[in-house]
Amino acid sequence: KPEKDDDLEYRVRVPVVRMQFGEVAEATSVVVLPVCMAEEDTKEILEAPLECRSGGDFGVVEAEKGWKRWVVLPSWEPLAGLRHGGVVVAFSDARVIPWKSNRWYKEEAILVVTDRNRKEVEVDAAFYLAMINGGGLKVDTGSALKEMGVKESLGTVVLVVRPPKEESDDQLSDEDWE
Amino acid sequence: KPEKDDDLEYRVRVPVVRMQFGEVAEATSVVVLPVCMAEEDTKEILEAPLECRSGGDFGVVEAEKGWKRWVVLPSWEPLAGLRHGGVVVAFSDARVIPWKSNRWYKEEAILVVTDRNRKEVEVDAAFYLAMINGGGLKVDTGSALKEMGVKESLGTVVLVVRPPKEESDDQLSDEDWE
Repeated sequence: KPEKDDDLEYRVRVPVVRMQFGEVAEATSVVVLPVCMAEEDTKEILEAPLECRSGGDFGVVEAEKGWKRWVVLPSWEPLAGLRHGGVVVAFSDARVIPWKSNRWYKEEAILVVTDRNRKEVEVDAAFYLAMINGGGLKVDTGSALKEMGVKESLGTVVLVVRPPKEESDDQLSDEDWE
Repeated sequence: KPEKDDDLEYRVRVPVVRMQFGEVAEATSVVVLPVCMAEEDTKEILEAPLECRSGGDFGVVEAEKGWKRWVVLPSWEPLAGLRHGGVVVAFSDARVIPWKSNRWYKEEAILVVTDRNRKEVEVDAAFYLAMINGGGLKVDTGSALKEMGVKESLGTVVLVVRPPKEESDDQLSDEDWE
């Protein structure tokens, strides 16, 4: 359920979603993705399983290799097709993302859903997951990476998920969502 | 959402749940459990991760070791407390379970949710997961296992999940469920 935040919408090319408490998810339409912790060994992201098929009557997820951390997300539109190459990077502080307007993104955990099949740094306004010199993961725009001469990222950011908020007033109702 | 099937209710001690299409699950109340395929290497069940904690703002699941197969289930009541020791065994044919009335359980895949912390064969009418001589997993009653002199099982069956049905007429509405 992407937030309609006009201020952001024209600046970034990546949808931002705020999880809702009691999010209504149809069991036939959830996505299970492997999770990497941004603060831990950055090699994790290279090792996380690439293929996560789900099938059968119960939607059992099967990866091509074992993995310890997983997250269940409603199958929001940008997550379709991420059965191959999708990975979720958990950051403890949303300010890792170079939003132009930073004020809404303080001290908040976020999930950065990344497509590892799209590593090439192409679009200036797109966000990419990149390795900082000396280790550590960061999120940067295509233009910033190009300025640094970086042509290949770890993947394109397809969705940013924010945690549920205590206050429910800025949350969209089901009717607002198509 | 356990089915109220009086015919069964008095014979077995394990709830049987029929998944619903479009099952309404709150994102804050799903359970992610490791899955073993009954038809594959039976050692799987001894190797599947025991501890599956979920936490943080997004309910990221973390197991003590990597695993390939996982399933997301609504956190039905019997699944509470299975963060430790819970495992799901996927059978391709529901007739593996010795129901007294077998007619409803033909050619249907089922999930057998098992608590590996309760291995002792105690209750006659309870169902336990056991290893067949020569390999292979089966589900048997406490009384049958006792007759065979089996005192320790692989775990107690806490829930059987049946796949969604095309026809929706025998499904309970949300109002029927407490």
